[in-house]
Amino acid sequence: MKEIHGEEAGVPPSDLHQHLGDLLKNQDAADLTFQVGAQRFSAHRCVLAARSSVFKAELLGAMEESSSGHIEICDMETDVFKSLLHFIYTDSVPPVLDVVMASHLLVAADRYNIGRLKQICEEKLCNNIDANMVATSLALAEQHGFHDLKEACWQFLASPSNLEAMMASDSYEHLKSSCPSVFKELIARILPAEWNAAKDIVLTMWK
Amino acid sequence: MKEIHGEEAGVPPSDLHQHLGDLLKNQDAADLTFQVGAQRFSAHRCVLAARSSVFKAELLGAMEESSSGHIEICDMETDVFKSLLHFIYTDSVPPVLDVVMASHLLVAADRYNIGRLKQICEEKLCNNIDANMVATSLALAEQHGFHDLKEACWQFLASPSNLEAMMASDSYEHLKSSCPSVFKELIARILPAEWNAAKDIVLTMWK
Repeated sequence: MKEIHGEEAGVPPSDLHQHLGDLLKNQDAADLTFQVGAQRFSAHRCVLAARSSVFKAELLGAMEESSSGHIEICDMETDVFKSLLHFIYTDSVPPVLDVVMASHLLVAADRYNIGRLKQICEEKLCNNIDANMVATSLALAEQHGFHDLKEACWQFLASPSNLEAMMASDSYEHLKSSCPSVFKELIARILPAEWNAAKDIVLTMWK
Repeated sequence: MKEIHGEEAGVPPSDLHQHLGDLLKNQDAADLTFQVGAQRFSAHRCVLAARSSVFKAELLGAMEESSSGHIEICDMETDVFKSLLHFIYTDSVPPVLDVVMASHLLVAADRYNIGRLKQICEEKLCNNIDANMVATSLALAEQHGFHDLKEACWQFLASPSNLEAMMASDSYEHLKSSCPSVFKELIARILPAEWNAAKDIVLTMWK
């Protein structure tokens, strides 16, 4: 008997993403609601558990959310949660995604351990570093342990003109106050090697 | 502000199929069981409803299955149902799929209105017609209205040597008895045009 391997030509591409996107929209058999700000979102326990180990622990474990079916998200903006849900069901980010949304989605993806979304957002931020964003990105990378983003920021700041432009940006003061460890590392990176031993003294002078 | 379009290089491919495949295996939050022969399968109402309009009507409508959460499938082989479920969750057919399984899956996909699976199986059967299978495929195509498959069978049988080989096959007698309409069409196709008006007489002689 002949055996058939793989797919033949003429078969349309997978429609699983579209079907799950429709499921999110039409809310068929939804068994969860999320309250985020003033907006309520319906969702499906099994889809969230399949896509996020954090949701799986929250929704299928012994925690309170497991039984009530209603969850309040207090520390995330509505449009960020909406994009997060959309990614969970469709594996795709909004077609137009600015760097601010990418930053927020990166934090959300990290919190819910959604690896691919995390990689997409981190990659986007790495490829869109500029003088205005770099201090904010550096602080974000430090606070959440985003190694690739941190490394990309250091590479950007290896150019004296970029460093100068960053120091003139609004977010520089915020970086100094919110992330002293990053600020210390910055000094160590730009000081000549012979001054490195005295970097704490320099740091005090810089303040 | 810079905007970011599409995906950047270095981001891994979609893992939605794999996550749903894992969900089917580990049965997390399953809310349905199917009894098929001696085997029981757990599944998720929302996933089935998202993927099949027939399951959606059965599972979310007012039918009995909607409330009991237990469904018996009496007219499908266990391994066919297993492959059907796997496709519903992962959008992929088993890596090695023989033509007999492709026939059964085609009927199952038609019954549950799973368009892409139907197209994949019909395409596979169309590309794997031989003298042993063609009578069976023709009967299947006639009974279920698979137009592409029927057309591919006629194309195969347009060759006199293929027609002769089909008439020597075991399934030819079955085709004659089970699908008289197809048999009549076969006669009409092979008769010279001037004999067409008399095809009912020829058909009687052929019996």
